[in-house]
Amino acid sequence: MIQSVPELNPGLRILLGPGPSNVHPRVLKAMSTPLVGHLDPDFLGIMNETMELLRFVFQTDNRLTIPLSGTGSAGMEACLCNLLEPGDEVIIGVNGLFGERMCDVAGRCGAEVQRVEAEWGKILEPEQVGAALKQGKTKLLALVHAETSTGICQPLEEISRLTWEHGALLLVDTVTSLGGCPVTVDRWGIDAAYSGTQKCLSAPPGLAPITLSPRALEVVKRRKQKVQSWYLDLSMVERYWGEERFYHHTAPISMIYALREALRLIQEEGLEEQFARHQRNHLALVAGLKGLGLELSAQKGHRLPMLNAVRIPEGIDDLKIRRYLLHEFGIEIGGGLGPLKGKIWRIGLMGHSSTRNNVLLVLGALEQALRAEGHRLEPGAAVVSALDAYGE
Amino acid sequence: MIQSVPELNPGLRILLGPGPSNVHPRVLKAMSTPLVGHLDPDFLGIMNETMELLRFVFQTDNRLTIPLSGTGSAGMEACLCNLLEPGDEVIIGVNGLFGERMCDVAGRCGAEVQRVEAEWGKILEPEQVGAALKQGKTKLLALVHAETSTGICQPLEEISRLTWEHGALLLVDTVTSLGGCPVTVDRWGIDAAYSGTQKCLSAPPGLAPITLSPRALEVVKRRKQKVQSWYLDLSMVERYWGEERFYHHTAPISMIYALREALRLIQEEGLEEQFARHQRNHLALVAGLKGLGLELSAQKGHRLPMLNAVRIPEGIDDLKIRRYLLHEFGIEIGGGLGPLKGKIWRIGLMGHSSTRNNVLLVLGALEQALRAEGHRLEPGAAVVSALDAYGE
Repeated sequence: MIQSVPELNPGLRILLGPGPSNVHPRVLKAMSTPLVGHLDPDFLGIMNETMELLRFVFQTDNRLTIPLSGTGSAGMEACLCNLLEPGDEVIIGVNGLFGERMCDVAGRCGAEVQRVEAEWGKILEPEQVGAALKQGKTKLLALVHAETSTGICQPLEEISRLTWEHGALLLVDTVTSLGGCPVTVDRWGIDAAYSGTQKCLSAPPGLAPITLSPRALEVVKRRKQKVQSWYLDLSMVERYWGEERFYHHTAPISMIYALREALRLIQEEGLEEQFARHQRNHLALVAGLKGLGLELSAQKGHRLPMLNAVRIPEGIDDLKIRRYLLHEFGIEIGGGLGPLKGKIWRIGLMGHSSTRNNVLLVLGALEQALRAEGHRLEPGAAVVSALDAYGE
Repeated sequence: MIQSVPELNPGLRILLGPGPSNVHPRVLKAMSTPLVGHLDPDFLGIMNETMELLRFVFQTDNRLTIPLSGTGSAGMEACLCNLLEPGDEVIIGVNGLFGERMCDVAGRCGAEVQRVEAEWGKILEPEQVGAALKQGKTKLLALVHAETSTGICQPLEEISRLTWEHGALLLVDTVTSLGGCPVTVDRWGIDAAYSGTQKCLSAPPGLAPITLSPRALEVVKRRKQKVQSWYLDLSMVERYWGEERFYHHTAPISMIYALREALRLIQEEGLEEQFARHQRNHLALVAGLKGLGLELSAQKGHRLPMLNAVRIPEGIDDLKIRRYLLHEFGIEIGGGLGPLKGKIWRIGLMGHSSTRNNVLLVLGALEQALRAEGHRLEPGAAVVSALDAYGE
């Protein structure tokens, strides 16, 4: 006989890692709404509103703009396995974990993967991408806009222009950027983008918002072979989210309630104000970190506002500090991945977690943690620098 | 500029369709719990408890017993695409929509699919399956335990014995049965099973509980090729749910909170009592339907307790009745799929929806709906018959 499992009672956390971010009480409340069926007329209205709100944050008119029933990685796989067929040539930008992941996924689709690489923490230069495009008959160019593993924001406009010139499709990973800095799908000429709900949208993880241009959708419809994934086959999923409302799989109703509410919050704040808030808190954090003698590791001029990769000083034990923050302050920050393991911390200021209070708190806590490790720091220097950056 | 989207306010529903079922307030409340990170020590404890509770409902000791981050169909795809490689021979039982779906999914995995068929609404006979097994070198036999499209409960013990004799693996779809009638994975010798959360487990849709026997897991580990789906690659997913806690994708934290609470409710009630309740309410519904002159369409002796396929009488407009129930009573029941479209209603009594109150209510509402269509019925006959069946 199984032991009785106690009431759910996880610790209270301030989520300042690479996601999930803190979820607004209104979003939590929306999730506790009793369910209607996935083909209920009321739910069809909710689906329409959710699509409309997603078009708003993706800044697109794309009809096929929907939340897929999986996390951001399912969004990545959906885009790659719908747009690629065996033998297709794809160029993938690799300067962090998620570019690597795209190569793995595209390889599993039977595509010929060509990597364009940069050091983790540096951007890909348009020239590199242009040179790669010249070499073959590329069907798709895939890039990560916001590399969560390094804190890099990849410029896209010039690369988009080159991609179009070569007649290829442009796929962009916006998991961490969407809602936290501009992602202008239509203006930048992005053909397909996917995201996650647990970063700057501040909903719980579990859905992958995606958008496909009419050109990309045409490629899906003209496929020679069936998409290898039934679950992620966009030509079928589209029929459920489109006019037909044809049953494919049961939509994750409560998660869609949550996403809709999270998007309403963004709509109420305004996209521009949300971007400005992310930027403001990022700059204050950086100023405060400087006060602690800490600096960011990502290439200057291309740093994400919502994901701050902080170089861990010599002689400091990564895990010890993170445990201290978690146990003493209930604060989660992230560690480094792959080659950056033990070398950086990743401090996320995403969505509802991007607040002045959280900036001041994490700086104060970090100061305390470093001091506990024997670092000599001027008391309060971090917080003073941050407040200064806020103009206060 | 996008129009402002109103506050979430869907109609209140009594969910008596093929799923989702009504969700207990404790489960809704669990979902509104603030999130911790997917690698937080507190979350790792929650994962362990969830796995333990899933083993309890699957009646298995299988270590790999976890909720996948997608709906039941993702569970189907995960099992097929991990266990099958291109060219592998698979036998699939087809007597309803979900057997058809398995053929589609297995075909996309490159497997050689052999169908064993029965009429929709009838079971597959062990002799048929045995004969098919004799014909080739079958790697996997896949069957639907509870066909949600027809209301059939497929007997498994004899077929399991035959499958083992032929050295094949047995995969079973338990989306609708799990939690509502016995699914004894270990005793029946099931190698792999998947389910959904929105049926008899009465959590919202969005997760796919799966379980794999050590023998099945060994097959996954000895694959020649990578699994075509990165997202559903169980050898990677297993490393996150196992001792290593290796990051794969961000778990859908709030959904896991919900599932855990739903499973706790089952544990508190007891599996046997939950099965008995489903059976009791099923028999009362059938008695009441008889009072209305309605009968079930699925093969006698093999009817599911949680999904009642009701033959629609001549001259009655399927959609009109369902709309009436929805608009006048807030009750959702399901229509038929495929060849059964317009021919049956599917009345679900699943999980938290399987109550005496709901049985009496749906009978009363159906009586009213049929009367509105000009059917002559003895007033209250249905409810009286149902109460009679309860021994009241």
